[in-house]
Amino acid sequence: MTSGPDIRPAISALPASLIGVVANYGRGRDGMIPLWFGEGDVPTPGFIMDAAYQAMREGHVFYTWQRGLPELREALSTYHQRTYGVPVGVDRITVTGSGMAAIALSMQSLIDAGDEVVVVSPVWPNVFASIKIMGGVVRQVPLALENGRWHLDLGRLFEACGPRTRMIFINSPCNPTGWTIGTEDQRRIMEFARERGLWVMADEVYSRLVFNADRAPSFLDVSEPVDKLLVINSFSKNWAMTGWRLGWVIAPAGMGPIFEKMTQFNTSGVAGFIQKAGLAALEQGEPFVAEMVERCRTGRDIVCGALESLPRVRVQRPDAAFYAFFSVEGAGDSLELAKRIVDEALVGLAPGAAFGEGGEGYLRLCFASSPECLTQAMDRLIPILR
Amino acid sequence: MTSGPDIRPAISALPASLIGVVANYGRGRDGMIPLWFGEGDVPTPGFIMDAAYQAMREGHVFYTWQRGLPELREALSTYHQRTYGVPVGVDRITVTGSGMAAIALSMQSLIDAGDEVVVVSPVWPNVFASIKIMGGVVRQVPLALENGRWHLDLGRLFEACGPRTRMIFINSPCNPTGWTIGTEDQRRIMEFARERGLWVMADEVYSRLVFNADRAPSFLDVSEPVDKLLVINSFSKNWAMTGWRLGWVIAPAGMGPIFEKMTQFNTSGVAGFIQKAGLAALEQGEPFVAEMVERCRTGRDIVCGALESLPRVRVQRPDAAFYAFFSVEGAGDSLELAKRIVDEALVGLAPGAAFGEGGEGYLRLCFASSPECLTQAMDRLIPILR
Repeated sequence: MTSGPDIRPAISALPASLIGVVANYGRGRDGMIPLWFGEGDVPTPGFIMDAAYQAMREGHVFYTWQRGLPELREALSTYHQRTYGVPVGVDRITVTGSGMAAIALSMQSLIDAGDEVVVVSPVWPNVFASIKIMGGVVRQVPLALENGRWHLDLGRLFEACGPRTRMIFINSPCNPTGWTIGTEDQRRIMEFARERGLWVMADEVYSRLVFNADRAPSFLDVSEPVDKLLVINSFSKNWAMTGWRLGWVIAPAGMGPIFEKMTQFNTSGVAGFIQKAGLAALEQGEPFVAEMVERCRTGRDIVCGALESLPRVRVQRPDAAFYAFFSVEGAGDSLELAKRIVDEALVGLAPGAAFGEGGEGYLRLCFASSPECLTQAMDRLIPILR
Repeated sequence: MTSGPDIRPAISALPASLIGVVANYGRGRDGMIPLWFGEGDVPTPGFIMDAAYQAMREGHVFYTWQRGLPELREALSTYHQRTYGVPVGVDRITVTGSGMAAIALSMQSLIDAGDEVVVVSPVWPNVFASIKIMGGVVRQVPLALENGRWHLDLGRLFEACGPRTRMIFINSPCNPTGWTIGTEDQRRIMEFARERGLWVMADEVYSRLVFNADRAPSFLDVSEPVDKLLVINSFSKNWAMTGWRLGWVIAPAGMGPIFEKMTQFNTSGVAGFIQKAGLAALEQGEPFVAEMVERCRTGRDIVCGALESLPRVRVQRPDAAFYAFFSVEGAGDSLELAKRIVDEALVGLAPGAAFGEGGEGYLRLCFASSPECLTQAMDRLIPILR
């Protein structure tokens, strides 16, 4: 044990999240404004907490359905019809202990050692790890900035898919860039995936947090129930439930028994009372989602307005998600810069290097917090970024 | 997709839990007495629910520490000193989303394709799956019945360890047999593991549910903090928190950063308010543990007393855990028998075949339920088992 624990080389090689590195560096400092994680400062709505407590008191504290409470899966099916206008059969829906857990269970089910996953980057870093844990290989296809807009080159994406490619992973609206794929590109990717027999994993966690439309385009719009498509979603962002660990995955119906097993063998299910809280969010939470979108729009305008005034900063005002992803001319290493900002401004940002190829040189700021908090953060940041 | 989903062969090959097969067969029938799962009929104590709700209201609804709230890890360290008389440093403790999750994260960290794990069986089936998901190979060493007592042949265990062996897995007190390993055998296994450079994973979830001592022997008694030992534990059984999904793992201190990463990349942590509920259980839950032990002792005596009167049944009255694991002469296939018992007696039992080698021919009955419930169940079972 003298040279560290004897674990799998693939696991030793996994980098710790650089977001966590900055957070561990800054956490606990007096007066810190933490904008490093993907969450705001609004707690979960009270009616959701009350639903959880009531469900505990009603006895939802025993082992429960591995794929989720039937009433929650039913409500998710209804939710998709109502908000996306897409029918999604209950047999295609599995409740998971977060969007992250949905990705982890899916990768365990699909990725063998040596399988390649083509990932559109920059993207939140946990995706890379979930592939490497299974011995998979990540092939990144970075977005390019064209006329100040993030752009995916489909030709480049398709060229990256080779004989060992097993899956294409796309997070849209994208954390951290806010990039949102269009319906026509989604259609072409689904067609390409069908021809090649590839899986598509679409992380659509931010699809309701959109400022120029009711919702972002979804791969559900351009696919059939039998397509090898996994759509990842979560209660975290829409209903301020980040800490609750509740998500869901939509899969071809034949995957149901697979997710039942994989849930059993990873966590053995999600607490029934947390699922009841999710049910309340679906049934009574639409006004809160609308508030959340407006809150984020205000936050975006405060943050991007301030950043746009700085000559060294390049930023695109995003139409979706809740991040400003901006570069600072001559700033160098993003991790060092993020730490310097902790030291000098007591503002917590995520370093762009955390997000894979195309991320270095950038910083990510989550603008889901209150206008007062964001205004104060920008006041502190401007002297450093000027 | 016509021939089922295109997933990893290792995952297709994983059998669904046979316990689940029986439960799915019987669940929802009017008047069913479900004794198939490892839980009783007592809900979680109210003070634990109240602690969770209070923590929600106090704002423990955001992303939190990946290895667990510092105050919970500290309390777990204190708990081990208090109830086991063993010092366990906080740096060795990681909070997980169940004992199952602790096992899954550990297997992901340690087991590469082709690595062998020697498992003492019969044992709860999820362990096998967690190994196979990582491409590992299970080598079972079944307990033998000697003079009516379950017995582990250490020579046989050591012989089963070959050049590809990576780990020895021992669940003691054992689900389903109640077999409990002694301190001297634990010491010899730790010495053997040290010599061979093997990991030992000790599932000690039932170590407080013991009827002839304060607690079962623990591998913590015979090991050093640097030993390649993982001790798995859970809030589920001691405090009737099966549905909450909260557990912990004790590891060499060097594993801390590994578990931090693996938590991040699997579930991204356990809800803060659930951890606060666990803290309340540790701090105020000792009287409940004592009640739970007495409840199980009463349950054991009702169930085993009835079973011992049946000439075709062979049962050992267990000194730990909360299962009667009994064979029925001439009964044949345990899955078929369990289904027949659902049909004819409306009692839910787990088939012995679920528990690996040495399990076929047996049935498992969880006696953690109320005396009234168990008496009724035995009244219904006796005509079938007579």
